[in-house]
Amino acid sequence: MTVQSKFRRLATDNAPGQELRQNTASLDALIRGDKLDGTPVDFSHGDVDAHEPTPGSFDLFTDGYAKGGAQAYTEYRGDAAIRELLAPRLAAFTGAPVDATDGLMITPGTQGALFLAIASTVSRGDKVAIVQPDYFANRKLVEFFEGEIVPVRLDYEAAGTDRAGLDLTQLEDAFKSGVTVFLFSNPNNPAGVVYSADEIAQIAALAGRYGATVIVDQLYSRLRFGGTTYTHLRAQNIDAENVVTIMGPSKTESLSGYRLGVAFGSTAVLARMEKLQAIVSLRATGYSQAVLRGWFDEPAGWMEDRIRQHQAIRDDLLAVLNAIPGAFARAPQAGSYLFPRLPRLAVPHADFTRILRLQAGVIVTPGTEFAPHTGASVRLNFSQDHKAAVAAVERLAALVERYRA
Amino acid sequence: MTVQSKFRRLATDNAPGQELRQNTASLDALIRGDKLDGTPVDFSHGDVDAHEPTPGSFDLFTDGYAKGGAQAYTEYRGDAAIRELLAPRLAAFTGAPVDATDGLMITPGTQGALFLAIASTVSRGDKVAIVQPDYFANRKLVEFFEGEIVPVRLDYEAAGTDRAGLDLTQLEDAFKSGVTVFLFSNPNNPAGVVYSADEIAQIAALAGRYGATVIVDQLYSRLRFGGTTYTHLRAQNIDAENVVTIMGPSKTESLSGYRLGVAFGSTAVLARMEKLQAIVSLRATGYSQAVLRGWFDEPAGWMEDRIRQHQAIRDDLLAVLNAIPGAFARAPQAGSYLFPRLPRLAVPHADFTRILRLQAGVIVTPGTEFAPHTGASVRLNFSQDHKAAVAAVERLAALVERYRA
Repeated sequence: MTVQSKFRRLATDNAPGQELRQNTASLDALIRGDKLDGTPVDFSHGDVDAHEPTPGSFDLFTDGYAKGGAQAYTEYRGDAAIRELLAPRLAAFTGAPVDATDGLMITPGTQGALFLAIASTVSRGDKVAIVQPDYFANRKLVEFFEGEIVPVRLDYEAAGTDRAGLDLTQLEDAFKSGVTVFLFSNPNNPAGVVYSADEIAQIAALAGRYGATVIVDQLYSRLRFGGTTYTHLRAQNIDAENVVTIMGPSKTESLSGYRLGVAFGSTAVLARMEKLQAIVSLRATGYSQAVLRGWFDEPAGWMEDRIRQHQAIRDDLLAVLNAIPGAFARAPQAGSYLFPRLPRLAVPHADFTRILRLQAGVIVTPGTEFAPHTGASVRLNFSQDHKAAVAAVERLAALVERYRA
Repeated sequence: MTVQSKFRRLATDNAPGQELRQNTASLDALIRGDKLDGTPVDFSHGDVDAHEPTPGSFDLFTDGYAKGGAQAYTEYRGDAAIRELLAPRLAAFTGAPVDATDGLMITPGTQGALFLAIASTVSRGDKVAIVQPDYFANRKLVEFFEGEIVPVRLDYEAAGTDRAGLDLTQLEDAFKSGVTVFLFSNPNNPAGVVYSADEIAQIAALAGRYGATVIVDQLYSRLRFGGTTYTHLRAQNIDAENVVTIMGPSKTESLSGYRLGVAFGSTAVLARMEKLQAIVSLRATGYSQAVLRGWFDEPAGWMEDRIRQHQAIRDDLLAVLNAIPGAFARAPQAGSYLFPRLPRLAVPHADFTRILRLQAGVIVTPGTEFAPHTGASVRLNFSQDHKAAVAAVERLAALVERYRA
């Protein structure tokens, strides 16, 4: 495959944050009516001004800077003392041991962890099971390394409220067909659903039976609503060398501006990830790493407050969205993504998301980024200013009516 | 190629900063005599405590943090306003226009820029010309993407003092054999030599004749000694779409702890680099990007002072090294690397570098990291505390005598 053809598949035109680079001239013929006034809301990512970084994070950065060279130049896998500090916290959170020396790595965001993990497990022609819908970069990563994607359907709409809705028969068929790596996010991005204990147990059993490596992106696993039960794959009956767990403080904790993530689990995969980190970007930003000292050590009540605020926004947005005739939005059990399916419109859904931006100041991520069959849905990160978010979704609802088929 | 075989070639055991992960038990039989006392010096990278970050850099970071979400979530290619600020400065420095919108990208360190540039130009089986010796990651990057390395010799020892010593006949033969990408550092890492105007003109002419893309790593091009003339490839008679220039503030400016670099030039290659950045780590650390506002805008006299300090250290270390019978060290014209060739020793040179660490508290990078034929050389980053560095190189000289063949 030539470099050119490889990159043709890596389109970022609809990726979150890239909207400014879009050409909107072609929309003129479709536009109906006037603009709707209101505070613009960018639902493509969380608003760290509305939900501020964890208290004390900037002070930890400052301390890291003051440490000088020792903090600027860490090992590729990250500062050893910080790994020692994090390992027991991550072990306590996930319910299984974490080896600070060989089983944990600090990465440039969870994106960095995902990239390194896929690069370290997938080679040309390898079969990789990917959930549909799931985080768009999962698919792109496998394509970039010329792996073969075997899709596994997540029917979150039909699954009720107790299961994420993974098609376990399809997953087993995927393993039978030679899949060696299974990559998924839990809670699911974009649908916000959490895999049930039974679903996770069955994933563990299948991975064990077929000797597959499982990479699980648990980025949002701390922000859980209404007592949702969360099951950590790595704490199940599964070979620890076959699991890599990925997390980070960019979302719930609003620390995205520091670019931090972690990968932990399989020492063999992590050893490869570190080798690759050495030529990708050397290390996660040295001074930033110091901010991780405060992770899983937030002030008492802080996380509960953050969850409460997000649950309140979620509920208000859900009420507006589910009042749109023909729309459907399942209540997310965790995280800050809503993934409503919109009714039939008179314009293609892809154009509607651009119209939303132009006429309502509302930026959402098109559903096609997450699965070929979710083009009628849009993803909203509802970690926003509460009032502005409600008003923005009301404008979205108004435009749905204006453009209804 | 399997993932396993791909990673077997990515060894990092001797990479700078990874020394703590080495097993030293096997050295016991080789050790002679006692340890030498003195302040340990890690010559594998610069000492940002001895040569501090540019004045004001931390304040710029603080301002970036205060800006909040807008600075945390930039476009993948980096904050647009900062690119607007940097483009004219980089154009003035290099002597050719820089397009802030499509021709410039902020990256996670220069390492990040190198990774993205190679990933965006080299595919399986593509032939890539690599200088020997040159920065060790260059070779590893090409190997990781399964390109074919065509070595081009840099005979910096025989070249005198006016040329870097590139074998231009070999370079032309490389292009004739089908090389499509030429990657090199100028000043050369590890030898510290600067390519002459004639060498750069010939590289430009050859790249033009054979339609090759040239990626030039100019990381150290600001720290030049004694009026050394520096020729920017991108300002020569060469198709601007065939050149990517890479720089960053990690070395001369001691800003490595922020993980910042830039790539500029070919809009086609940069478009691919941005697409890839989206799945590698999204963006250079958002808050850190704000620190670039001070780059190429340092206080008057600051750069001159920094150069003066480094030139003084360089001269003192050269005097010690060239007094070792049988050793040879060419004076670097720029940057902060010395690459002395040591005389024949009674132990393998690879073991000697580990003995140096154990017996003298001196960490250097083995010459084999840079070329197969430079195993008798070691690389020292002399951006260190002046006195400690001189004492450390005196200990190195003492151990050379102790282990002389």
